[in-house]
Amino acid sequence: MRISIQAEIFEKLPKLHSNFIYFENLKFKEGKEHELYDGLNEVFSRLRGHGGLETITDITDYENLLEELGLKHAQVSTRSMINLIVAKKKDLILHHPIIDAYNYFSLHSLTPIGAYDVDRISGNMEIRFTSGVEKFKKLNKDTHEEVSDSLVFSDSNEVMCLDWVSKQSDTQKIRPRSQNILFRIESLKDEIENQKLIDEFTAYIEEYFEFTSMDTQVLSAENLEVEFKQSTEVLDRMERYQFYTDLLERGVSDVIVKEDLMSDLVDGKMLKIKHGVDPTTRDLHLGYAVNYEKLRAFQQRGHTIQFLIGSFTGRFGDPSDKLESRNMRDKKTVMDLAQAYIDQISIVLDRDKLEVIYNGDWYDKMSAEDLLRLMSKSTVARMLERDMFQKRIEQGASIGLHELVYPLLQGYDSVEMESDLTVIGTDQTFNELQARPLQENAGQKPQNIIAMNLLIGTDGTQKMSQSLGNYIAFSDTANDKYGKLMSIPDHLILTYAESLSRYSKVELENLRQRFASGTNPRDLKADLALHIVANFDGEENAKLAAEHFKTVFKDKKLPDDIDSIVVDESKTVLEIMMLKNLISSNSEGRRLIQQGGVSIFEGQKINSHEHTFKTGFSGVLKVGKRKFLKIVVE
Amino acid sequence: MRISIQAEIFEKLPKLHSNFIYFENLKFKEGKEHELYDGLNEVFSRLRGHGGLETITDITDYENLLEELGLKHAQVSTRSMINLIVAKKKDLILHHPIIDAYNYFSLHSLTPIGAYDVDRISGNMEIRFTSGVEKFKKLNKDTHEEVSDSLVFSDSNEVMCLDWVSKQSDTQKIRPRSQNILFRIESLKDEIENQKLIDEFTAYIEEYFEFTSMDTQVLSAENLEVEFKQSTEVLDRMERYQFYTDLLERGVSDVIVKEDLMSDLVDGKMLKIKHGVDPTTRDLHLGYAVNYEKLRAFQQRGHTIQFLIGSFTGRFGDPSDKLESRNMRDKKTVMDLAQAYIDQISIVLDRDKLEVIYNGDWYDKMSAEDLLRLMSKSTVARMLERDMFQKRIEQGASIGLHELVYPLLQGYDSVEMESDLTVIGTDQTFNELQARPLQENAGQKPQNIIAMNLLIGTDGTQKMSQSLGNYIAFSDTANDKYGKLMSIPDHLILTYAESLSRYSKVELENLRQRFASGTNPRDLKADLALHIVANFDGEENAKLAAEHFKTVFKDKKLPDDIDSIVVDESKTVLEIMMLKNLISSNSEGRRLIQQGGVSIFEGQKINSHEHTFKTGFSGVLKVGKRKFLKIVVE
Repeated sequence: MRISIQAEIFEKLPKLHSNFIYFENLKFKEGKEHELYDGLNEVFSRLRGHGGLETITDITDYENLLEELGLKHAQVSTRSMINLIVAKKKDLILHHPIIDAYNYFSLHSLTPIGAYDVDRISGNMEIRFTSGVEKFKKLNKDTHEEVSDSLVFSDSNEVMCLDWVSKQSDTQKIRPRSQNILFRIESLKDEIENQKLIDEFTAYIEEYFEFTSMDTQVLSAENLEVEFKQSTEVLDRMERYQFYTDLLERGVSDVIVKEDLMSDLVDGKMLKIKHGVDPTTRDLHLGYAVNYEKLRAFQQRGHTIQFLIGSFTGRFGDPSDKLESRNMRDKKTVMDLAQAYIDQISIVLDRDKLEVIYNGDWYDKMSAEDLLRLMSKSTVARMLERDMFQKRIEQGASIGLHELVYPLLQGYDSVEMESDLTVIGTDQTFNELQARPLQENAGQKPQNIIAMNLLIGTDGTQKMSQSLGNYIAFSDTANDKYGKLMSIPDHLILTYAESLSRYSKVELENLRQRFASGTNPRDLKADLALHIVANFDGEENAKLAAEHFKTVFKDKKLPDDIDSIVVDESKTVLEIMMLKNLISSNSEGRRLIQQGGVSIFEGQKINSHEHTFKTGFSGVLKVGKRKFLKIVVE
Repeated sequence: MRISIQAEIFEKLPKLHSNFIYFENLKFKEGKEHELYDGLNEVFSRLRGHGGLETITDITDYENLLEELGLKHAQVSTRSMINLIVAKKKDLILHHPIIDAYNYFSLHSLTPIGAYDVDRISGNMEIRFTSGVEKFKKLNKDTHEEVSDSLVFSDSNEVMCLDWVSKQSDTQKIRPRSQNILFRIESLKDEIENQKLIDEFTAYIEEYFEFTSMDTQVLSAENLEVEFKQSTEVLDRMERYQFYTDLLERGVSDVIVKEDLMSDLVDGKMLKIKHGVDPTTRDLHLGYAVNYEKLRAFQQRGHTIQFLIGSFTGRFGDPSDKLESRNMRDKKTVMDLAQAYIDQISIVLDRDKLEVIYNGDWYDKMSAEDLLRLMSKSTVARMLERDMFQKRIEQGASIGLHELVYPLLQGYDSVEMESDLTVIGTDQTFNELQARPLQENAGQKPQNIIAMNLLIGTDGTQKMSQSLGNYIAFSDTANDKYGKLMSIPDHLILTYAESLSRYSKVELENLRQRFASGTNPRDLKADLALHIVANFDGEENAKLAAEHFKTVFKDKKLPDDIDSIVVDESKTVLEIMMLKNLISSNSEGRRLIQQGGVSIFEGQKINSHEHTFKTGFSGVLKVGKRKFLKIVVE
């Protein structure tokens, strides 16, 4: 971990000493609270007793320099604190011993001090003037803003402190569970006085904190670069932070509670991650895979995936996203469907490491009384807050009493499984939130929730869904998968890459840049389709599918393996298509013909589903974009 | 069963023959439907083919006579039917073979015919001019109206047919299960032609119906009274009709489905009558007794009372009429309270014949799955229709999910118990209605419901309730019961008599008349109080209580058995009252004093709860209306 400083800075601040003091495993000593807070109160009193604040030359020195740097709008943190304490007569809000301690020292020494959570620093750091537009995340904000024309402290990723010593970024701020800390003390004192300041600060920290290592480095006009060594443990934490930050953003709609989950993950805690399904179909599609790919990433890092089959709840159905009440299913149907699920998700997840759990294991044994007691823990109003119920009520559709309980049952699953986290589509957030109070009630830590964006289907507008026909099934052939992926609209390329690919952060960034720089979307799709199909059907099949696609579409040639049929002249085109399974229903066939999707290859469109072919005809029928059939009429 | 006709009628209708034909157990022959309805269609066609309807002199004869009787507004039923069939070109609505058959004959013979359900006739019948204002119940109406200035056919109770042959009453109309029928054929023909008409009618009925007996009687100027003998079976049915009609009105708010329940009762069917309670208090009061007195009447007629203890539901509480969610109770508390209930209701009901049932017997065994399946049979919207839930929602109070299921559980109890009927306070109607579809679903006949009026408390305004203090407890002494009954406002006398007394119909009518004719309400209350107290505490105790009351209040004398206390002058009046348990709390004492309810007997009111008595004082303290204490200060 290297820190450098631009030489130009010393033209304006020749006396500057930029001091960095790095601690690993910094922990507040037990029983020292009173002493720390007495010290703070003492400094508050002293400041309030101070005559004219303007006379505090130490701070005005910094302010003059800010002005000289063209940063008059900025404020030295020490000055902000003093204003609060003296003019507004408020005490500082106490945050955390580390923050409270360095605030004390900043007020005591009238020196601006910053502190950074090293776990969240990416690469090397610099103190420098901005080059063009850079990224900065304001304190307590979720998104980055763009900044320029400033003197900043930054890591290889983003600005860590804006306006020299003025604004700390949210990213590396000290959090309740921060433990590896880099302090930054900007001093305008001479070398001897500066060394005294450092000694005083480290002695103060040693007084109140335990730590496993400490290192001090000073940047000055004579020393433009310094380096800190970190322990393996810290390097691991830094790696985890970078990895999970990316994982918790890609394809993700919302993380509840992000801060808590991130701390667990940075700590290297191995989580029990629940993913629950009520088996309702035999045919999984890529809309489901969004969740499985996320789970896969966790599984590969060593977390345990609890694949929960709603063997009980599946029997009477979740009303999610359905506007009519679901019918009840029998036990056998549900278990058959469950097996089909497990077989298919094993394409993405490591089956051997998967913990498959059935909620019938507890619900089949649960008594009516226990269920009523569970129900007594929630209210009608709380349940009716659910979007889907609100929609049903607006539309005058009925809600079965049993359906109202569903979210509670889904929540209670997490109590039985002691889940730490759940990964689920964003439409399940409400249900999964029900788990948290129930777990707390049972003395467990409430689970966190990763709510995934729902994947848009190949039509580019609606959620991927079997009933809308805009889906890519696990069971589709590699050719079909590839073809369908090539058919998505361009604006979905990045979404599909985020939600379905296993690209590294760098690979994904690369794709983004190619997209932004105007690379032909067809080429980007071809790369992505090859990658996704390979994940499902193996690299060999993916390559064959890509070649097949090229032959059929790009070169407008027919594929080699066309099926053929011999018919007499009474057969209609619709009957022929049904006979060879080119369509799944007569209505699909009629619709295709109506939309101009059926033609003679390199010939005319078929306009009527009652179209017949004359004896002697021999030609190739093209159905949709990718299906062909040779017809001979005898 | 006698029928007479006023001689004066023959002054205006000298040629009249009033024919009555009485059948017992009249039942339509199986397989004769087509023939009957072919006949009806044939007569419709014939009438429609008929040239000018004005020429049907047979009917105009009747109409001229109606005019002569001053009943020009009335219409002969035969004419109404012909108008419908010919002018409006509609077929008659087919009701019931008996009605359809006599309608056919009326159209065929152009003679007005009426039919009456003999089970519902009370006493003897007359054809006569009204004497003053009489009672009449229009077809398909629930209440009686007052009629006068008409020629009517009536039984000893009310008008059975208004305007000679024009309007049939609802009371004796033919119903699906009617079987003992009195036909009335008014004829203006001479004797020979009249006999031919009768013969033709009876032959027609014999063609289509089976019966156990038939009798024909003709009233004419020469024969002003006839008599029919009924079988014992029919006499029993008539008695049951009169008895249960009264029982289903007295203190009753609503009967669902009244027609069906009445038919069962007239048939002499012995019912399983459910009365369910969730034991919540040790102290029953007369508000509960309203239900028990009704059940008692049924029990004495041989019906089985299913006294259902909510040993399961009582544990988590019915939200009825409570604006906050109820807390859960434990099993033991509920069972203890249940025993207290049974002990107390045995004062009113015959314990030996009582079937005591606990719903824990099925709910303790019920699985969560079964409960969910039960819940799937109803909807959120249906449950939220309940008044109490609506009120809670309006007031922003919460409804526990378990509470929403309560009505369904209460309903399902009836499925387990195969109840035919339930007797319950009107606030339970919604819950008991839930039973009907569940029973139907289980292949049972849905239970009927008698919803009782809720008893107003002794304050005369609010529902009797323990928390309002306006109640008379089962456990009150006879003196207290009597005193409290004497304190009810006069307007409640009839309500209390209807809801709580065991008066016969005649006795109750008697009380009503005395009340209406201005008898001193105190005397009526004294009679009623004596009767009610005797039911609870025995006749001897009731009489003693009446005497006690007389001594204390009416003659303004002190009772013989006054308690006494010797105190020093430091004791306040409040302390003294608490010492001798004249009040149950200090706040009750303070309130009583504030309201002027504490005084020295035949002396001054006590104005302050800190009032003390001087040494040497000796007097009687009067607390409220009925409590006395001799105080001696030494």
